[in-house]
Formats: sequence, structure tokens, C-alpha cells
Amino acid sequence: MIFDPATLRYTAEGLIPAIAQDTGGAVLMMAWMTRETVEETLATGQVTYWSRSRQAIWRKGESSGHVQTLIEMRVDCDRDCLLMIVDQAGPACHTNRRSCFYTAIRDGAEVELMAPEA
Amino acid sequence: MIFDPATLRYTAEGLIPAIAQDTGGAVLMMAWMTRETVEETLATGQVTYWSRSRQAIWRKGESSGHVQTLIEMRVDCDRDCLLMIVDQAGPACHTNRRSCFYTAIRDGAEVELMAPEA
Repeated sequence: MIFDPATLRYTAEGLIPAIAQDTGGAVLMMAWMTRETVEETLATGQVTYWSRSRQAIWRKGESSGHVQTLIEMRVDCDRDCLLMIVDQAGPACHTNRRSCFYTAIRDGAEVELMAPEA
Repeated sequence: MIFDPATLRYTAEGLIPAIAQDTGGAVLMMAWMTRETVEETLATGQVTYWSRSRQAIWRKGESSGHVQTLIEMRVDCDRDCLLMIVDQAGPACHTNRRSCFYTAIRDGAEVELMAPEA
């Protein structure tokens, strides 16, 4: 079946959550896409989100160089969430850590799992 | 630092997205939690979501037996998304597939990656 980004289920704001996972299995981040950025991601092979804070297209790594090259896009059963398998250049997180999920909850306390990269 | 679920950033509806990943690295699903279900998940060790369609607490696997036992909860840099590392009993998806992300987009077409489990 041909994939049509218009068939995804977007929020009232026209957004769909997108999870980025690297080829080694690490979950790197979760951000949001619009129909337009889903199309751009598939067309260019470079993962492109929608920045809710800036209300603008966010070509991941455009300024930092920490681009995400799309290996495969996946759609969930409800068609309201995307999973991007990516080749991540450098750290994914704006804190310079590999993943945004660097804080674990252990015995009721926050534990930092990874340090910023040099 | 003590973890306080009240410090997470919830939507206007009081929700936070939660990604479930199994211990083998597979991303299983994305659903939503409330502050109350974050607390219940940590207290019980069984992953509990908020069902937006039913507007009710959703104790994953309560009727199907396909429970998610929490191995570790992680918080992202913006404190507006959670990652649950889980031990998944049976399939995570309501279609009886291991993961909800069973559809890949390849060359513009939808390709089914996994079949329902018996």
C-alpha cells in the first residue's frame, strides 16, 4: 500500500509525536512532526521536526551538525505516533548527551546515566 | 535528587507521553500518563497509563495479561517525555503483535514487519 502522510492522525495542532531510535537500539529523543515535515523527512532522508517553542520547521542538526539520517520510518497501529530509526551524528540532545533520556529514577531519586560528550 | 512527579511538564490536559522499550531494545509503544499514573507505575512496578479514549486509568495488561513490568523509568532533558524500560509479557500491541510499530515505510509503501502472535 502506498504511504500517504495525510492518513496519519495528527493532533488538533496538526502534530504527531516522533520517537528517534539509533541503529544500536538507544532511544534518543521524542519530538513532533507535521504532515509537511513527515514529507520532508521522507523526501530528503534527513529527519526534520516541528519546533513547538519556535513554531517553525526544525531541521535537526542544521546548526549543530548533529543530523539524523533516516534509516527507516515506522508507523504505529493507531497511526498517531512515528518511530524513526536513525543514524545519529554526534549527540542527539541539546545538552550534548547522546540521548535526551539520560536521567533514570532509581529508588525514588534521579540518577544521571550519561555525561555530556566533549 | 529526590524525584517528584509534580516536576514533570504535563500538557494542558495533564498528560505526558511515555515510550515503552523492552529490555532487548525494541520500542513497543507510546501512550500517555498522568501524574497519578506515573506515581502508580513507580509504586507498583507495573506500567499504568491514562487511556485518552476511555478517559480512565489503564493498567496495561489488566484484562489481556500482557503486563509491562517496570525495569526503569527515565525522564528526558525537557521533563516532558518518559521512557519506560519494561519486561513485556506477551505482545504489547492490541493487534497481538510484539510492537505497535510493525509498519515500515519503504520506497513510499507500507510494509508489515511482523505478524500477530499466536
